[in-house]
Amino acid sequence: MLLRIDHVGIACHDLEAKIKLFSELFELEVVAREVNEEQGVKEAMLRVSGDSYIQLLEPLSPDSPVGKFLAKRGEGVHHVAFGVGDVSDTMEQIATKGVRLLDEKPRHGSMGSSIAFLHPKDVGGMLTELVQGAKPAV
Amino acid sequence: MLLRIDHVGIACHDLEAKIKLFSELFELEVVAREVNEEQGVKEAMLRVSGDSYIQLLEPLSPDSPVGKFLAKRGEGVHHVAFGVGDVSDTMEQIATKGVRLLDEKPRHGSMGSSIAFLHPKDVGGMLTELVQGAKPAV
Repeated sequence: MLLRIDHVGIACHDLEAKIKLFSELFELEVVAREVNEEQGVKEAMLRVSGDSYIQLLEPLSPDSPVGKFLAKRGEGVHHVAFGVGDVSDTMEQIATKGVRLLDEKPRHGSMGSSIAFLHPKDVGGMLTELVQGAKPAV
Repeated sequence: MLLRIDHVGIACHDLEAKIKLFSELFELEVVAREVNEEQGVKEAMLRVSGDSYIQLLEPLSPDSPVGKFLAKRGEGVHHVAFGVGDVSDTMEQIATKGVRLLDEKPRHGSMGSSIAFLHPKDVGGMLTELVQGAKPAV
């Protein structure tokens, strides 16, 4: 069901400062930067290896989900994302196991992916994201 | 410097219950179980793909690091571990960049690995582990 650990999402107050920190400390390449208005974040993806990334997230406003997370918990790991083949199929399989989905249907994630979140209370306290990567252009 | 996201370590109150949850929910295989007295945990490694795992951690006592984490933050992501080629070399490189190491020298990790932790305050609030996998038997 899970193909890989796709990324670890880290909430931060200052995206540019954290891009500098992580890219210099671990010698990582920034492969994408994006503003996701729907999720209320600006973000960057730093490649660790293959299709595994560190995702840095700065909230667009204090009342966004990541803004509220920062106010409550401070900077640190916000969620963990796992690659799947087909996100809709996986959502269906998971729902039948009694785990609550935070999304009714897949939404837009980083780098053209389709994503869905699972309720952290049903997954050991970990906010969990499913990621179906963008289809390569033909 | 980083070869992969090696594992996400999740703190929990009841290891057996969480092994059941994660292995059934995500169809993951339990590849190792261990008691690490030095770190005050009993743990299990569930393979996501290749050398990437979900690590489940139950404290051996409330005054262990994971026990204190649970009391303060509840169940959830405790740390993130990255695979490296040589943990001692990587510790040295990282120390020269001004990041504090929580270990002076590598210690014993899961499945015969050598590990070291970095101070979360210097890594964006993420407790970060470096992992050098066990050398394969010749």
